[in-house]
Amino acid sequence: MSKKKIVITGSEGFIATNLILKLSKNNDFDLIGVDSSTANSVNKIFTNNLIKHNRVDIANESILFDLINKADLIVHLAARGNVVESIVNPLENFNANAYSTLILLETMRKAGVQNIVFSSTGGALMGNTSPPVNEKSLPAPISPYGASKLCCEGYLSSYSNAFKINSISLRFGNVYGKFSSHKQGVINKWIRKSIMNQQIDIFGDGNSTRDYIHVEDICNGIISSIHRLFNSKKAICEKYHLGNNQEISLNELSNIIEEFSGRELRRNFGNKRNGEVIRNCSEYNLAKEFLNFEPTKKFKEEIPILYKWIKENEFNI
Amino acid sequence: MSKKKIVITGSEGFIATNLILKLSKNNDFDLIGVDSSTANSVNKIFTNNLIKHNRVDIANESILFDLINKADLIVHLAARGNVVESIVNPLENFNANAYSTLILLETMRKAGVQNIVFSSTGGALMGNTSPPVNEKSLPAPISPYGASKLCCEGYLSSYSNAFKINSISLRFGNVYGKFSSHKQGVINKWIRKSIMNQQIDIFGDGNSTRDYIHVEDICNGIISSIHRLFNSKKAICEKYHLGNNQEISLNELSNIIEEFSGRELRRNFGNKRNGEVIRNCSEYNLAKEFLNFEPTKKFKEEIPILYKWIKENEFNI
Repeated sequence: MSKKKIVITGSEGFIATNLILKLSKNNDFDLIGVDSSTANSVNKIFTNNLIKHNRVDIANESILFDLINKADLIVHLAARGNVVESIVNPLENFNANAYSTLILLETMRKAGVQNIVFSSTGGALMGNTSPPVNEKSLPAPISPYGASKLCCEGYLSSYSNAFKINSISLRFGNVYGKFSSHKQGVINKWIRKSIMNQQIDIFGDGNSTRDYIHVEDICNGIISSIHRLFNSKKAICEKYHLGNNQEISLNELSNIIEEFSGRELRRNFGNKRNGEVIRNCSEYNLAKEFLNFEPTKKFKEEIPILYKWIKENEFNI
Repeated sequence: MSKKKIVITGSEGFIATNLILKLSKNNDFDLIGVDSSTANSVNKIFTNNLIKHNRVDIANESILFDLINKADLIVHLAARGNVVESIVNPLENFNANAYSTLILLETMRKAGVQNIVFSSTGGALMGNTSPPVNEKSLPAPISPYGASKLCCEGYLSSYSNAFKINSISLRFGNVYGKFSSHKQGVINKWIRKSIMNQQIDIFGDGNSTRDYIHVEDICNGIISSIHRLFNSKKAICEKYHLGNNQEISLNELSNIIEEFSGRELRRNFGNKRNGEVIRNCSEYNLAKEFLNFEPTKKFKEEIPILYKWIKENEFNI
């Protein structure tokens, strides 16, 4: 049997790097990477021998066509994921997320590529809907970033029906883990501050919560989705929340980092930021049922591991 | 008290023309029209003395800024509404609907315009969700057109929260009525065929249904929404289905036209068309509660009136 050809967009990114390392253990797949290289990630060095990274903006349809032609599946991870940046420049975020995804879908249609796993979002999509949310919750984005992901989910839905492109949208919680050095998530920022003995900024009163989910668990959900798409005999357009169903507040997070590191974190409380949801937490019953998804990583055990990784990889200590 | 300045996009269109005729009876409003004039509508002649029509593509941000600057409210009716065309060219539909609406929202933000009534869709947004649908139903578009409207609703949601732009999205059923000569809806097409004694095409078995709603009822819903936005003391981001909560099949429609006209309609059954929903019907309880919306027009009484209007206006008989 010939190997399945899988194209990963955003291949130099945080989740992609973890995914490539996992997927490359499976000899059934040929992996092709697409990345615009605009995120200043250094991750390529960890995966260069496992995948060919092509420096391409997805919005460039003609080059994209040649790359995805005859592919069996796309894992579409490329996106601008920063909520605050999407408020500063909604149009740039729209172009990178909504427009580029439509170009990708159009190119898939023309190239006859039938399957896509899409990286959506739980929190930003649902806005301030009372947690826990699940697949029956009504989307209500409060940032342009969240709206861009809803737009993509809508187009996946229409392309499934109109053009028989099968899709699984995975609504990620707040993903953390290694190979995230180019990311600005709160966990990484605070770990860096702790290492440098600097003050942390808490936007709001610190009671705002997130549903943190380890990148290894996310990768397991993506790989299950790939198999589900390959094994399905009928057209698929599915959405799943991949979260931990557990709320951790900013105050708790800062306490956790402080406790295990033994270093005091000085806290500077500022105003809540526009567009950021107050609470976020997702059930994962549906993903458990159909993707066999079950988070395996414990937050309190993983934060010290990430702390050590950031120390070694970003600070060389 | 100075008059409120209302900008209507798609001002040469079907719904806009009916709306302008109604709104202009209210002396509280200054009306400004924006239309790209690409739809080949002749409606301008009916409203030229009531509104200034500016020939502008909304995507042209700098010209749009001058037009909407200091406006109190936008009624955003401009759109490509044809499902079949959106399947032939999803990107063109995306640019006209999703991208242009984002440019409008960005321009509103920069010009400090705070209120918008948006023309969304019930059927195309909900796809093949079992009818009747309502505001608690999960969007599941099956055409690029439906996805473009979901995208706009998502951005309205995010702009409400992030930028305090108040919005009411009205999810229209299948709108019919006069000033629709440039439209390709099934009612108009079949009335024309009946007048010309030509065969009609039925795509599918004729049991496919739509929730037809008269343009006068839609205009009442829009005007209620305008007042609701102007009178609201708090931030608003609302969605309402404006339908009749009544399913009429293609077979029933053809029978109605046949019966009152006394002319046999020869029926040619073809394949169901890609992207078109099978059944569509919306409850309007929420619109009744908050917009005082209640359809007043009876379908069987209105079809003969439209028939006569099309005869006089399109055939000069």
